[in-house]
Amino acid sequence: MGNINYSETKILKVKEPIVLKSGKVLSNVEIAYETYGRLNENKDNAILVLHALTGSAHAAYIHKDTGKAGWWDDMIGPNKAFDTNKYFIISSNVLGGCYGTTGPASINPETGKQYALDFPVVTIEDIVDVQKKLIDYLGIEKLIVAGGSMGGMQAIEWSIRYPDVVNSTILIATSARLNAQGIAFNAVARNAILTDSNFNNGNYYNGQNPSSGLSIARMIGHITYLCEEAMFKKFGREFKDGPSFDFGIDFQVESYLQHQGKVFVDRFDANSYLYITKAVDYYDPIKEYGSLEAAFKNTNSRFLIISFSTDWLFTTTQSKQMVNALVSVDKDVSFVELESKCGHDAFLLEFEKQTKIIKSFLRG
Amino acid sequence: MGNINYSETKILKVKEPIVLKSGKVLSNVEIAYETYGRLNENKDNAILVLHALTGSAHAAYIHKDTGKAGWWDDMIGPNKAFDTNKYFIISSNVLGGCYGTTGPASINPETGKQYALDFPVVTIEDIVDVQKKLIDYLGIEKLIVAGGSMGGMQAIEWSIRYPDVVNSTILIATSARLNAQGIAFNAVARNAILTDSNFNNGNYYNGQNPSSGLSIARMIGHITYLCEEAMFKKFGREFKDGPSFDFGIDFQVESYLQHQGKVFVDRFDANSYLYITKAVDYYDPIKEYGSLEAAFKNTNSRFLIISFSTDWLFTTTQSKQMVNALVSVDKDVSFVELESKCGHDAFLLEFEKQTKIIKSFLRG
Repeated sequence: MGNINYSETKILKVKEPIVLKSGKVLSNVEIAYETYGRLNENKDNAILVLHALTGSAHAAYIHKDTGKAGWWDDMIGPNKAFDTNKYFIISSNVLGGCYGTTGPASINPETGKQYALDFPVVTIEDIVDVQKKLIDYLGIEKLIVAGGSMGGMQAIEWSIRYPDVVNSTILIATSARLNAQGIAFNAVARNAILTDSNFNNGNYYNGQNPSSGLSIARMIGHITYLCEEAMFKKFGREFKDGPSFDFGIDFQVESYLQHQGKVFVDRFDANSYLYITKAVDYYDPIKEYGSLEAAFKNTNSRFLIISFSTDWLFTTTQSKQMVNALVSVDKDVSFVELESKCGHDAFLLEFEKQTKIIKSFLRG
Repeated sequence: MGNINYSETKILKVKEPIVLKSGKVLSNVEIAYETYGRLNENKDNAILVLHALTGSAHAAYIHKDTGKAGWWDDMIGPNKAFDTNKYFIISSNVLGGCYGTTGPASINPETGKQYALDFPVVTIEDIVDVQKKLIDYLGIEKLIVAGGSMGGMQAIEWSIRYPDVVNSTILIATSARLNAQGIAFNAVARNAILTDSNFNNGNYYNGQNPSSGLSIARMIGHITYLCEEAMFKKFGREFKDGPSFDFGIDFQVESYLQHQGKVFVDRFDANSYLYITKAVDYYDPIKEYGSLEAAFKNTNSRFLIISFSTDWLFTTTQSKQMVNALVSVDKDVSFVELESKCGHDAFLLEFEKQTKIIKSFLRG
């Protein structure tokens, strides 16, 4: 169908230092970003798409260097949910990440060495403030924001933090804050990295990576991204080859998790995993503003909230809390719970249903 | 109230070799066990109580050496659910464990050294066969069996494997087989142990223990024993001291999990954790017999099945599958789902409700 669209990742060097929520200051921040479609003359057709935990700026199209499709390529493009014939879509890698935006593997200008754990702990608020630099640089004053999972948290914060900029907010499979169980999973994941014998207090860049710990962290993550129903459907209790009567890989679900762990350690930095999960754990506008109603009170946005029936990491109940808070402060909010057997992963898989709903919301 | 009851752990040396499900043979098997109450003249008042994943033979009373109460002391004793005025209660440590019954830390008679990973992989069926040696030794021919979680799996297998012995079976917070998600959690837990740099292919007994891996395994376990509701009630999103902006312990739920991990590594053998979780993963009478109905068809037992509303590791749905299978092969089965906010841990916490139901069933 038609021509192939290619993307490239650009770097914006932020001139001014960024003051973080912790009070620490980051200089020489760089932002990796991609754009799809064209910004119109009025500069009022921009959508900022926000990635989840381990995503990158490469959200759509085929990357001209790697040949790989973006993580939301099924959602962004001509006539897709985020239609590049109409909209100018922006995607940037988060602060603290490892795909081009400044993070713990970046060079600390004060020492000339990689930050490692000298990188300051960053928050969702900091991540959003850095994204704002990119939006300012692009000359955009009105914005639609959209994200799933941790991307949704960023979108929530955008609507709260920059109420004069954000006029539409799309929140998918997300929540205003992680529940205690979610913190628990992240805590165990970080513990696996921190106690890996190669971790060396984060200074592993010239040695062996803490691959075992990072792999365990990823396996834990994948359990929470699926749901029992999805796992049963995908793997059941089937053996890979039959019972081994040893401690090798026995069940197909074990094989799947091991594979996910192995692939992940080749593509992600363990320190970034620490920083980004911490940002997710910390995010809590309810604590910050006293209530969700107070947090949303000054927003000037329409909201679309989508949850998935089998998502147990970011539940429908949590989405409804946001809906109720928005309604009670007289905001324009649409809410849909989509039936899905894919668990939390649904936001990366259930394209057709999401597309219809998002298109309708964007028309509205 | 009244006198304190003390217990002691005894050891039975099994003379004959045990042929395992894998075909391997174990010699010189020893069984650690305790008993409470008195066996009557007819030897028909015995209840075998079966422990969960990391339990021991010390189920009740105050241990005369350690001064500690047994893991089900609230359920076993005079006038309790398992009434020692009426019944003779037996509890034994499982094969492969680390509390007295032969396991990977035991001496291999062929080498004079600890087995470590030379210990054969054992199954729930093997665990039950070893318990049968104890029951035979005690001269008991009719038996009530009762267990929660992995203890329930043993009870299921007792009813199937020894239909002429078992006349009543009490299954609490258990299932005929672990679901795919449960296998996934166990697989990640084992992976954490196996990849600990101290693990040394299981030969750590003269060196450093794989404490980091075992601790992670335990933390994962504890997440599954609670439920989000219980976690929220216990910890919410409260900080221990306030946001640290580092990677130390921040949230109370993190502190709880770290503590559980730390306590566990002092009391449990990492190799045993591998063997016992593997036994749980493998257990599958549905696969073994073709269906649950076929598995239960030749049992001669009454059944009591108790599930807990917030248990997501061994769900009410799984309990109902057993109920339906038993009904369809004309067995006498009672079923209760107890409301609880404690998740899977409820079987170790909700004593009052369980006591009423169990007493009624045992009278019946």
